Amino acid sequence: MRQRILGIDPGLNITGYGVIDITPTGVAIVEAGVVRGKTRGDVPARVMEIHEGITDVITSLKPTVMAMEELYSHYDRPKTAIIMGHARGVLCLAAAQNSLPLKHYSATQIKKILTGSGRAPKNQMQESIRRELGLSEVPEPADVADALAVALCHHYLSKVASAF
Amino acid sequence: MRQRILGIDPGLNITGYGVIDITPTGVAIVEAGVVRGKTRGDVPARVMEIHEGITDVITSLKPTVMAMEELYSHYDRPKTAIIMGHARGVLCLAAAQNSLPLKHYSATQIKKILTGSGRAPKNQMQESIRRELGLSEVPEPADVADALAVALCHHYLSKVASAF
Repeated sequence: MRQRILGIDPGLNITGYGVIDITPTGVAIVEAGVVRGKTRGDVPARVMEIHEGITDVITSLKPTVMAMEELYSHYDRPKTAIIMGHARGVLCLAAAQNSLPLKHYSATQIKKILTGSGRAPKNQMQESIRRELGLSEVPEPADVADALAVALCHHYLSKVASAF
Repeated sequence: MRQRILGIDPGLNITGYGVIDITPTGVAIVEAGVVRGKTRGDVPARVMEIHEGITDVITSLKPTVMAMEELYSHYDRPKTAIIMGHARGVLCLAAAQNSLPLKHYSATQIKKILTGSGRAPKNQMQESIRRELGLSEVPEPADVADALAVALCHHYLSKVASAF
C-alpha cells in the first residue's frame, strides 16, 4: 500500500504540516504549509481554525498516517505545554474522526533519526530535511520544517521496523 | 433572556458536566453527569468521545454559556496539565462549533465565590454546592460536583457584574 505521511508541528498560533509520499525511488513532498490561528487571544476560535484547517488537509490529501511530536516533550515550559495540549487535542480529534492512525515521536528521537545526534542544533536539522527531500532551500517557516521532520522520522522508523 | 449555564470539569478519563438554570426564584439543576473516555491509552479515541459527548449535551440541552476552570491552574503537575490541555482543546472546539460563549475561572476564584475562602477543603466545597442547589446529597462523582461549582461561580460573578 502506498504510504503518505502527514507530519504535524502543533501550536495555537501556527500549526505546521507537511505531507510526504514514500515512492519506490525515495521520498517526495506532496504539500507543506501552515494553518494559522487568525484570531488572537480567543482559544475556542483558534482551536476551531486549527481543526478545520487540518481536517481540510486530511480530506483533500488523504494521508495514510499522521505523525506528531510526543506528548511530554515540553515539561520545562508548562505554559507552552498546556497551550500545545489544546492544539494537540483538536489535532488528535481530526485524526480520530478521519480514522487516521496517529504516531508520536520524541524531539530527541526525531533529531537523532535525522542527523545522528539527539542534540543537533536547528540549522543542522534544517539542512538534513532539505537534503533528504531534495529541496534547493530550507523549508520555511520553522513550523513547516519541524512538521516535515516528524514525517521523515516516521518514515525512517517504520522502514527499520518493516525490515525485521 | 433565560440563562442556562454549562459547567465543565475537563479530564481525559472523566469529564464532568453540570447544567443549571437561573430562574426568578433561584438556581435549578437541569442535568449533571459525566462523559467517560471508554478507551484507555488511546488519546485520539478518548478526545473523540469527549467531543461527541459534550456536543450531545450542548445540542440537546442548549445552554447559553459554558464555564470551565482556567487554563493555568495545574502548573504544579505538568503531566496532568498537558493531558487536561488535550481534553480542554476539544471542549473549547465544541463551544466554538456551537457558538457558545466560554468563560474561564481560576480554582481559587471558584472556591472563594462558593465558600468565602480560596483555600476551602473539598468537603466544604461539596457542602456549599449541595446547599446552593437544594440537593439532599453531595453530587457524585467529584467531577460532577466540580462542574456544578464552576457553573455556580459563573452565575454569582455574572450576577455581581450585572448589578453595576
